[in-house]
Amino acid sequence: MQNLSKSLVRRTINRVQDGVLQTPQEDLLAKEEPLEIRLIYGPPSARKSMALSVTMRTPGQDFDLVRGFLWTEGIIHKREDLLTLRYGGVSLAEESQENVVLAELATSAHFEPQQVERHFYTSSSCGVCGKASLDLVRLQSRFSILPERPIISTEVLQKLPDLLQREQRLFAQTGGIHAAALFSPQGKLIGYREDVGRHNAMDKIVGMAWQSDWLPLRDHICLWSGRASFELCQKAFMAGIGVVAAIGAPSSLAVEFAEEYGMTLVGFLRTGGMNVYTGVERFQKIEPMT
Amino acid sequence: MQNLSKSLVRRTINRVQDGVLQTPQEDLLAKEEPLEIRLIYGPPSARKSMALSVTMRTPGQDFDLVRGFLWTEGIIHKREDLLTLRYGGVSLAEESQENVVLAELATSAHFEPQQVERHFYTSSSCGVCGKASLDLVRLQSRFSILPERPIISTEVLQKLPDLLQREQRLFAQTGGIHAAALFSPQGKLIGYREDVGRHNAMDKIVGMAWQSDWLPLRDHICLWSGRASFELCQKAFMAGIGVVAAIGAPSSLAVEFAEEYGMTLVGFLRTGGMNVYTGVERFQKIEPMT
Repeated sequence: MQNLSKSLVRRTINRVQDGVLQTPQEDLLAKEEPLEIRLIYGPPSARKSMALSVTMRTPGQDFDLVRGFLWTEGIIHKREDLLTLRYGGVSLAEESQENVVLAELATSAHFEPQQVERHFYTSSSCGVCGKASLDLVRLQSRFSILPERPIISTEVLQKLPDLLQREQRLFAQTGGIHAAALFSPQGKLIGYREDVGRHNAMDKIVGMAWQSDWLPLRDHICLWSGRASFELCQKAFMAGIGVVAAIGAPSSLAVEFAEEYGMTLVGFLRTGGMNVYTGVERFQKIEPMT
Repeated sequence: MQNLSKSLVRRTINRVQDGVLQTPQEDLLAKEEPLEIRLIYGPPSARKSMALSVTMRTPGQDFDLVRGFLWTEGIIHKREDLLTLRYGGVSLAEESQENVVLAELATSAHFEPQQVERHFYTSSSCGVCGKASLDLVRLQSRFSILPERPIISTEVLQKLPDLLQREQRLFAQTGGIHAAALFSPQGKLIGYREDVGRHNAMDKIVGMAWQSDWLPLRDHICLWSGRASFELCQKAFMAGIGVVAAIGAPSSLAVEFAEEYGMTLVGFLRTGGMNVYTGVERFQKIEPMT
């Protein structure tokens, strides 16, 4: 395998067409590598370090990924909480040095290791039901969702999948990568991020917005290339996003989440139509069929 | 929302077609709920309990999911290691009682909590590169992959996606769920499992095979409805599966993994053809194009 970029590798493969093996050809693959996020935290007299998570991700925009992860998981609460980000795998072989990111919190940042355990592993049983999962998020977010924003139209929404696909470089090259994108209510593509993990793509786009000081994203539509899960809706909510749309189907808990928090959730979005699961009141100019 | 079964809910939604809002209709959604796996382990004099993981899954075949998870993550190594499985959320509201599974290990089972931390969170930096991720799996598996088994044909493989889709009940109803399936080399569907999480679907099918005492699955083809990731290949390897095929694209690390361990990895499988990324030697009767 040959690295073409941080996110892309080239490899010779065997294609079969109509049962016939073709001569070996070059193919492009989306890169997947582990990323460890390590946190440095605590008061000046007792700085500590802990591994926060290991995720399989597509390298590229790693700092956005970490920023978005720290924000959407409720580990940082304000801009000043995060001092620096740097690669920390200096003891590793060269090709893996960028697989560890050290996130240094300010000494004033409020962080307790137990809060991570509670959040990720939910050691008390009462956290383990859909309802408790929904409630937990409310405690963590700095933003609420405004019922009247943004106003959207079906005409604009139907165009978004094509607009994204035209831009999605890694997908066009590999056919195998998720995307999360931000659009204006008028259908302008603000930005998108790609990753083999859909939650990573979402963290990257939220991290990009955080870094640009755009949060809360009150006047944006978030588009996902795949299905809508509880986790993706939660991350959107943590960024203040009121309208999310997926090209694939939503899960039951994604819909419950969107309803509970007043978000508009659209699924099966395509040129010909869409399913509106929650928040239909944000649409203007939908004519009910008579 | 109304529960139709453990795995399926009904909800009224607004469909938009050609920009026109239809009268509200009923729609079916794949259920997503958290599942906590708790482990009971240790010598008779000092039994302990710990939360092993929380995963968002589609309820149904939970015990298969837990069996498969314990096996593919290398927590149990032989049949006798696992004493009992039971639901443990008795203190929860009725609809959430099945969101906790207690897995009781035998007192003779060798289990150290550190081994879980090492595996899931990789606290030492040297675990955080693709190569180390690959090596780690070798240590854990009881099975190796036999180079000569099974022999497969492109004719059979091309039929598998249709065979699976004809059977996939939840997908047909919701359009939003992953599947993992086992086929014989002759193309007979042995079994399949569905879940909103693709790794859960894989754990469920491996857990089913474990329970039936079929491991290692030396004469099976494993088909995934989506993309092929490192994690899925790792789980297949832990079950002794030599041939894996995905309807979607593989990641770079999935291909590296399959190559390292002598597995055949097929991607973009459809009626008209496929990409063979590794292990092309298992195919019979592929005529090279001249």
